[in-house]
Amino acid sequence: MCELLGMSANVPTDICFSFAGHIKRGGDTGPHKDGWGISFYEGKGCRSFKDSKPGYCSRIAKMLTNYPIKSKSVISHIRQANSGRISLENTHPFQRELWGKHWTYAHNGQLIGFEKLPLSYTHPVGETDSEHVFCWIIGQLNEYYSSLPTDLDEFTQRIGSYGDILREMGVFNMLMTDGEYMICYCSNNLYWITRRAPFAKAELIDDIHFVDFRKETTDSDVVSIITTQPLTKNEHWHKMQPGELAVFRFGERMFYQNK
Amino acid sequence: MCELLGMSANVPTDICFSFAGHIKRGGDTGPHKDGWGISFYEGKGCRSFKDSKPGYCSRIAKMLTNYPIKSKSVISHIRQANSGRISLENTHPFQRELWGKHWTYAHNGQLIGFEKLPLSYTHPVGETDSEHVFCWIIGQLNEYYSSLPTDLDEFTQRIGSYGDILREMGVFNMLMTDGEYMICYCSNNLYWITRRAPFAKAELIDDIHFVDFRKETTDSDVVSIITTQPLTKNEHWHKMQPGELAVFRFGERMFYQNK
Repeated sequence: MCELLGMSANVPTDICFSFAGHIKRGGDTGPHKDGWGISFYEGKGCRSFKDSKPGYCSRIAKMLTNYPIKSKSVISHIRQANSGRISLENTHPFQRELWGKHWTYAHNGQLIGFEKLPLSYTHPVGETDSEHVFCWIIGQLNEYYSSLPTDLDEFTQRIGSYGDILREMGVFNMLMTDGEYMICYCSNNLYWITRRAPFAKAELIDDIHFVDFRKETTDSDVVSIITTQPLTKNEHWHKMQPGELAVFRFGERMFYQNK
Repeated sequence: MCELLGMSANVPTDICFSFAGHIKRGGDTGPHKDGWGISFYEGKGCRSFKDSKPGYCSRIAKMLTNYPIKSKSVISHIRQANSGRISLENTHPFQRELWGKHWTYAHNGQLIGFEKLPLSYTHPVGETDSEHVFCWIIGQLNEYYSSLPTDLDEFTQRIGSYGDILREMGVFNMLMTDGEYMICYCSNNLYWITRRAPFAKAELIDDIHFVDFRKETTDSDVVSIITTQPLTKNEHWHKMQPGELAVFRFGERMFYQNK
């Protein structure tokens, strides 16, 4: 399988601490050694770092654990290949432009029969179920809306309805963002935490590493982390339910829906 | 203005030497300090490194001058902003998916009246003339062909005809690749060199740095570099003519057309 990591924040925030724990699972404390990637939004712009090699020993990933790129929206993924061979084109996150926005997506799980989902607007470059499904979602949205809809609830419920279809085909845990909204769909494994004042210390599960958020933040900061498995040992993480859809915006969980 | 750097090779080759000279012009030996980017193809996959900060003092760019990513097709760009403010979304190279391939593009020059070029398939995220024009080209190609055409000459001549239209609107020096073909259009400044056996030493113009390609290559290697201004002082670079279109594939210049 794979592991997902997402961040939504109300001020540009670095993800070095969470990424340090997450990337260790990319072949060291976890088996997800078949590639890794991370996408950072800075305004409407987005930049990604990707490699088809294991994350835990990657020089680029190592640099990113020490190089604080400040962003309000981040998605990262470490891969354990099942659908599609180990290659750069099969490495998450995937990205497409729609309505003049970069959409970034990563998936955890495996889907049976995904090839039957019809494609229209955009097509996969690699061979994974994940990228095919992303292209299907983008195509469906493009057919339904001519621009980003103003009714957010209706829009995210529509994405949730795609998640419900996909969950019937296997396991579909997903993060998807346009840099403002972080849309999360849970099939079986997805946890979240929102950190806000009063901040405290946090300690990673996967590395001898802790951070005192009191020294890193201001009182108005709100930062949410979404992940396949909790990253810290001394905090309370909320487990999402099967079929649950959640949307974070600038750190706050602003919408959720349980099945 | 800006500067372009492209590479086409018949074996996966690193671009560290050329990039070291090119990136110095990003605010040190040249004025192009308003962002930089580089895209590497590995098979059908592509990964980019981008920053809206100056390249010459970027920690990520510094790492890339020492970290040999092997690729057959690379495009890099250093920016001096004119159309569009300094921001990540306005930083080249730009990328879109078409026909299940990642297309990467970078532009040097400034165009008047670009807003009138109609868009269909894909839309710009930022505000530059460059990205608008790229979206126009991708849209035109998408309307004309339902998949990558097999007649390469006709296909590249079509892109050349778009270049001819754009050159009338100002300056349009361009590199565009799908990882296999490196399509180059010259408005006023574009040079190229093909290195093959017998290899020799080369010395950068912008840095105290030379390389002995005899130690870095095998006799069958063919590597072409395309750039806005020559990067080395002891080699002969070919100057492209205004209106010239050239296509490189796996290192070889396989097609060219002068006006």
